[in-house]
Amino acid sequence: MSGTQVRRMIPVEEAMAQLMEMAEAAPIRERETVLLAAASGRVLADDLVATLDLPPWPNSAMDGYAVCLADWHGEPLTVSQRIFAGQAPEPLAPGTCARIFTGAPIPVGANCVEMQENAVVGEDQRVRFTEPLVTGQNIRPQGQETTVGDVVLEAGTRMGPIELGLAASLGRAELDVVRRVRVAVLSTGDELIEPGQTLGPGQIYNSNRVVLCNWLERLGCEVVDAGILPDNLEKTRSTLGNLGYVDLILSTGGVSVGEADFLGHALREEGELSLWKLAIKPGKPLTVGHYRNVPVIGLPGNPASTLVTFALLARPYLLRRQGVQDVVPLRFKVPAGFSWSRPGDRREYLRGRLEQGQAVYYSNQSSGVLRSAAWADGLIEIREGTTVALGDWLDFIPLSEVLG
Amino acid sequence: MSGTQVRRMIPVEEAMAQLMEMAEAAPIRERETVLLAAASGRVLADDLVATLDLPPWPNSAMDGYAVCLADWHGEPLTVSQRIFAGQAPEPLAPGTCARIFTGAPIPVGANCVEMQENAVVGEDQRVRFTEPLVTGQNIRPQGQETTVGDVVLEAGTRMGPIELGLAASLGRAELDVVRRVRVAVLSTGDELIEPGQTLGPGQIYNSNRVVLCNWLERLGCEVVDAGILPDNLEKTRSTLGNLGYVDLILSTGGVSVGEADFLGHALREEGELSLWKLAIKPGKPLTVGHYRNVPVIGLPGNPASTLVTFALLARPYLLRRQGVQDVVPLRFKVPAGFSWSRPGDRREYLRGRLEQGQAVYYSNQSSGVLRSAAWADGLIEIREGTTVALGDWLDFIPLSEVLG
Repeated sequence: MSGTQVRRMIPVEEAMAQLMEMAEAAPIRERETVLLAAASGRVLADDLVATLDLPPWPNSAMDGYAVCLADWHGEPLTVSQRIFAGQAPEPLAPGTCARIFTGAPIPVGANCVEMQENAVVGEDQRVRFTEPLVTGQNIRPQGQETTVGDVVLEAGTRMGPIELGLAASLGRAELDVVRRVRVAVLSTGDELIEPGQTLGPGQIYNSNRVVLCNWLERLGCEVVDAGILPDNLEKTRSTLGNLGYVDLILSTGGVSVGEADFLGHALREEGELSLWKLAIKPGKPLTVGHYRNVPVIGLPGNPASTLVTFALLARPYLLRRQGVQDVVPLRFKVPAGFSWSRPGDRREYLRGRLEQGQAVYYSNQSSGVLRSAAWADGLIEIREGTTVALGDWLDFIPLSEVLG
Repeated sequence: MSGTQVRRMIPVEEAMAQLMEMAEAAPIRERETVLLAAASGRVLADDLVATLDLPPWPNSAMDGYAVCLADWHGEPLTVSQRIFAGQAPEPLAPGTCARIFTGAPIPVGANCVEMQENAVVGEDQRVRFTEPLVTGQNIRPQGQETTVGDVVLEAGTRMGPIELGLAASLGRAELDVVRRVRVAVLSTGDELIEPGQTLGPGQIYNSNRVVLCNWLERLGCEVVDAGILPDNLEKTRSTLGNLGYVDLILSTGGVSVGEADFLGHALREEGELSLWKLAIKPGKPLTVGHYRNVPVIGLPGNPASTLVTFALLARPYLLRRQGVQDVVPLRFKVPAGFSWSRPGDRREYLRGRLEQGQAVYYSNQSSGVLRSAAWADGLIEIREGTTVALGDWLDFIPLSEVLG
């Protein structure tokens, strides 16, 4: 793909397949051992295999009384022991019951727990049951959750609170995880200045930098903020040359065939460069290449285009670099609360919401408008070449599925 | 509600309404000024009001040529200036065009941009256009995104990458945000030990602690890890007494009317305490009260119960304490990939997935089983008193909507 410009429009699926192939060709192989609490957002390097049964022994699901049904014929029972959670019980003495509390181990010999609400303690302290008892009732069997040797989480799983809880329940205080992906964020555009500075003529504030740096952090990446690329080939070369240690250079704001395109020039000089025309709206131009041996992805610079291409293409690429298999966001079918009469040649992702169960979109869908995305709860997909009638079913991708 | 035990089952909506009322009675009023990059996950204390138009001036959506259509009649035009993004243009000289690049300000006098693909530069360096020109084409008008005085984000907005980008585009380097909610996480249960230790008889590893601490951090809370509550009234009092500075004590693992319930005892002694029976499954028992003046929420201790009650009740409560209005997760209608013949008296949240567009649930829905949630992509809601036939529409709440 070196140096060529692909003229035809690339469908989203094809771009995705190529990016996945590129990601799998450059997996992050380094791993590190981290404390459980520090593993949030990280990717498991190995399968998490159960080294104990969960629960480790049958236990009571209720506060009540443990009984052996085989040697009980309805008579009131003496309480021979009290078993709190965290205690090791004695075997159940024949002809007695045990007072037992939720989570406590079932004593050997007992095969039923009756809840205290169905028990009456007489004046002689013996216990009578008011309902029929059934073998196994209110007992959580050993290994109900997990048995030794089960693969509880596969390598490549991203660790959220639930996954951390599973690892904790198996007694794991540390986990082996894949090294974070190091991503350098570069903005291009001589019109950009940073927030807090005074706007000069022709200047606008750089918003993509904070969007991408924050988003990458949420994805568990190590972010190298490489600032705004200077308007100068020599400085561009030197900035890129200093990024040899990162796993990806992520730029925004257009590599083009135009004049004053120093990033494109530098990439052609010491790397390779494809300019993809994606069949996606917003977000047509995507740059994919290498500088020396560092992969480069260049997202379009308009804020809504940056958002959509990052969410749908760069995010899966970064996750796959870490070995995550499940990189595609959930999508749901929703009825259109609008009609759409102009079939496009690109797949369109409207920034939209659900209102009264119907998908509606923000009035201004310009790629320069970020408010559309702040207003939105998700992306409404309109496939290329299609029109939409009110009530037609469309795919909706919740933003929550791609923001973390 | 002091000291009383509510016997009837409380529907989810009613519990939610009560919790919202409690949250609104104790809003976090303190605010702090933070750098933009540090505002991720924080809640805006004030409306974000636009102090400039965005874009600040009309600008070019394309690389091309800027023209004044009023004094042009089809003749080739001389290029009188070149305007790069970031530069301030001269007014357009009459009878000429300006070379212009994407994002550059439109020169005074020009009212149309033609893209370079539709322009031919002659040997005399004059530019001829191959397509008809239309007034306003390829010009992004001043204020398309925002005009001065617009409320761009309302107070109470949670700041994610998109919202941070909007603030950056308005030049904001700092934001006033609501102080983080301080939450003390307490586990109760004498059977619990921490991961990394050796299991003794009757003991299990504490998983709720890491689940909740991590989840609270994702929600932008300041977490006080108060450990496992000791099996001793004196120590319980002293632990609670040291937490006077937090906004919420969040415990797991059952306050009950049972024996050995030191947390319940302490709350009754120096606070107030309601034991709610929620019409929710998993997760029936919920404790709500105060210790001295600190609000207390006690979640049930079974992992799946902790998860569901935190996601659906404690999370909205914590967000509302910070002034967030939009606390309810998105839900989607999905067709059931199963049937359900036993109507329950509680609203059930099955840990489920979408497979071939249909909702299916994890085989073991025991409240003690956390693997169900790690396997799941969301919660499938089955309303109390209803049955489900294959293909019926059910509500599905993606886990991504509640985990951050």
